[in-house]
Amino acid sequence: MTQFTDPKTLNNADIESGAIFAPKFDANGLVAVVTQEASSGDVLMVAHMNADAIAETLRSGYATYWSRSRAKLWKKGESSGELQEVVEIRADCDQDALLLIVNQTGHGAACHTGRKSCFYRKVETVDGQTVLADSGSERLFDPADVYGR
Amino acid sequence: MTQFTDPKTLNNADIESGAIFAPKFDANGLVAVVTQEASSGDVLMVAHMNADAIAETLRSGYATYWSRSRAKLWKKGESSGELQEVVEIRADCDQDALLLIVNQTGHGAACHTGRKSCFYRKVETVDGQTVLADSGSERLFDPADVYGR
Repeated sequence: MTQFTDPKTLNNADIESGAIFAPKFDANGLVAVVTQEASSGDVLMVAHMNADAIAETLRSGYATYWSRSRAKLWKKGESSGELQEVVEIRADCDQDALLLIVNQTGHGAACHTGRKSCFYRKVETVDGQTVLADSGSERLFDPADVYGR
Repeated sequence: MTQFTDPKTLNNADIESGAIFAPKFDANGLVAVVTQEASSGDVLMVAHMNADAIAETLRSGYATYWSRSRAKLWKKGESSGELQEVVEIRADCDQDALLLIVNQTGHGAACHTGRKSCFYRKVETVDGQTVLADSGSERLFDPADVYGR
């Protein structure tokens, strides 16, 4: 079990300005992770990491998240081939979120629906109703082929 | 109290492909929100919204989050003047995260430390230790002037 510095042992200035990496995990032991494509700047997805996922990502150089639905480490692309090579990892001011800047390999699709980004729908207000509108992102792979369903 | 469609009333295909906006709030009634600057593509911050924050953001056109520390709606920039004009809102595949694409007004600093982005430090491994390295982002305002502390 990977251990990082407990942020409760640091003061606010150290957390915000220091060199000590002390991720602030939530009650489930997770931090939010935003994954951004290095070449385009597109936000690909939001996922979560526990301490082991952070350590494995740093060790391997490939994005490894914590799957909340499967309750296990999830090497992104292990089923689909859409691995994410890590270019840079950043931590935010209060160290409760990480930004992963990656090269999206495979078909270039981070989303399990086959699209580049999970954020393929716009939230809009139409006639006073909040609805989703497809932004027209193409599918780069067919999930039926990749996941066999 | 704003009500959106409960995702439990929808099937998976509707959640992932449909036009019905049904944000999947966590146990605290929140979704994660990534805020990205429209002009640069830079990821500025990660925050949270409850249903009322989403509704107020849609109504006003300015980013309004839920402050977990203050337990109240937080119009970003209400103290600092660093308002965020919403250009587009996107929802992800399972509707548990939002992407806000904004024009960062004021000094152009989303972070309370005065920097453009909250992600101003890199996570690096040096001699087997995981440490934070400043990426050199300049301070666009002095927090002492803006927040009076």
